[in-house]
Amino acid sequence: MGTGPAVLAFDVGGTDIKAALFDDAGRVLGLSRTPTPLEPGRTAASVTRRLGELSRELRARFPEVEPVAAGVVVPGIVDAERGVGVFASNLGWADAPIRALASREIGLPVAFDHDVRAASWAEHRLGAARAFDDVVVLVIGTGIAGSLILDGRPHTAGGYAGEIGHSPVADSPRCACGAMGCLEAIASAGAIARHYAERSGRPVDGAREVLALAADGDAEASAVWSEALDALAFSIAQLTAVLAPRAVVIGGGLSRAGDGLFGPLRERLDARLSFHRRPELVPAELGEDAGLLGAALIARELDGDTAADDPDVTGDADAEAAG
Amino acid sequence: MGTGPAVLAFDVGGTDIKAALFDDAGRVLGLSRTPTPLEPGRTAASVTRRLGELSRELRARFPEVEPVAAGVVVPGIVDAERGVGVFASNLGWADAPIRALASREIGLPVAFDHDVRAASWAEHRLGAARAFDDVVVLVIGTGIAGSLILDGRPHTAGGYAGEIGHSPVADSPRCACGAMGCLEAIASAGAIARHYAERSGRPVDGAREVLALAADGDAEASAVWSEALDALAFSIAQLTAVLAPRAVVIGGGLSRAGDGLFGPLRERLDARLSFHRRPELVPAELGEDAGLLGAALIARELDGDTAADDPDVTGDADAEAAG
Repeated sequence: MGTGPAVLAFDVGGTDIKAALFDDAGRVLGLSRTPTPLEPGRTAASVTRRLGELSRELRARFPEVEPVAAGVVVPGIVDAERGVGVFASNLGWADAPIRALASREIGLPVAFDHDVRAASWAEHRLGAARAFDDVVVLVIGTGIAGSLILDGRPHTAGGYAGEIGHSPVADSPRCACGAMGCLEAIASAGAIARHYAERSGRPVDGAREVLALAADGDAEASAVWSEALDALAFSIAQLTAVLAPRAVVIGGGLSRAGDGLFGPLRERLDARLSFHRRPELVPAELGEDAGLLGAALIARELDGDTAADDPDVTGDADAEAAG
Repeated sequence: MGTGPAVLAFDVGGTDIKAALFDDAGRVLGLSRTPTPLEPGRTAASVTRRLGELSRELRARFPEVEPVAAGVVVPGIVDAERGVGVFASNLGWADAPIRALASREIGLPVAFDHDVRAASWAEHRLGAARAFDDVVVLVIGTGIAGSLILDGRPHTAGGYAGEIGHSPVADSPRCACGAMGCLEAIASAGAIARHYAERSGRPVDGAREVLALAADGDAEASAVWSEALDALAFSIAQLTAVLAPRAVVIGGGLSRAGDGLFGPLRERLDARLSFHRRPELVPAELGEDAGLLGAALIARELDGDTAADDPDVTGDADAEAAG
């Protein structure tokens, strides 16, 4: 990722934490993936404490590298400006001052953001989105996450923007989030596998198997895949009319279908539109470490003022257990 | 609209041109509405020539007011940055350098923008949207136009953004634009009147009459109105998930239905959403002169550089007739 100050980077997920040190040449050192310590009612404390341990391990292993900041990215609703994890169902926190807690544990200034927004920012700075000032990034895996870069800047709306997976494309089925007809409930890899199993009565290993079955002429697989493509084209048509991005970058497991996804999606999108300016549909380039790269980037871009307004967390972080 | 330099303002529509002079106290002087000179193949020339005549009339009538700039707003696809009317079906121009032509005819620097974006900017600076940095403005009349203000700035994407009226909410009916299931084809005042006439076989004077019939228990009117409300709620739910605006300001003829529109719309929007942050739904405040006010505002905000890159139009403007 080019030269710049050395930084620590952490991508916190519901299952594991990816950690690494980036040196001043942009080389990644000591990349590790360890389980996320989920302690019901005190996950913010246990996770940030773990980030402190991982920092000390990395610094002990690479004493010649002197990081000046750390980047921490997490899932859920994230208010990057305030440094707060507003809500994350798989981590169990609500309104947790993650940036301040992490900064105390790591002993460095911390840049804090949403995992998919950070990954999208990495695609914008280093990957498939770098040619575009107006670009939407969609990550299609078990769920569907999105992120908007408009006029070259992330549009976050306090962490609530970019929920393209939970934007309606139909009146059914009910989504896990509680709303009806969300894109994620029809077109995520998870939904594709689930719908095929429901219709055919045959469980499958994942969306990839449904696509293979569709390619082999399985009618139920073809129908499920076609519905997913229609829903994606519908959603991208909405984005096109409202935001007119120059490109939609698609990453996540489903994007590995390559032309099997991008070809029919381009056709269906084109058929839905009239005078609208078509966006390019392009595959993400950075792969599954995009979030970690994004964490390193935001740490390098950190300006000294960011954490100045953070709440005082010198007290017991475990106080969250009461919340 | 407060104190500032005196400016000329023109709101060019497919039927008429509104023109006025705003003095340095923000008072509107000599407001007029005259027919738009539509000359097939040379409308850009005839319209901008007419703007020159209107300027001279206003300046002759109010010689004590010395305008320093003019604001010109037009419908269609508008690239404000380049000063170009990209396309306007009701004015018949394509890629017309309106800003440069108007500036030559008026003899002053010209600020140029899209009519609904300018009206929305006026709502943001002076009206219902002034408390919000992230706000969507919807104007629901014969058609549906939209405009986005994100992080306090208009998001235009070269004039293609904000086409909420031509964003899909369903798979049918076909819209006049050629696409299927556009919001405008279901929920505009024009569509409401048309759909009622089609279903009932009884022509109506407009959406207002359909709403009155629905209030009186007419089943077909109720069904048409309910479908329009569902489509609007669907569209605003999309905007909420993707952009998370703090408010959606609704203007245009349909907004005069007041609580008859805003009440059921709030309920349906709320029912569609889950974890999403609800936007306020608020009526526009500035009325039908919002576009003209917006033209005056952008003229006052004009920075001297804007027109520096304009193409040379010292030649014959009628050359467009060849296009």
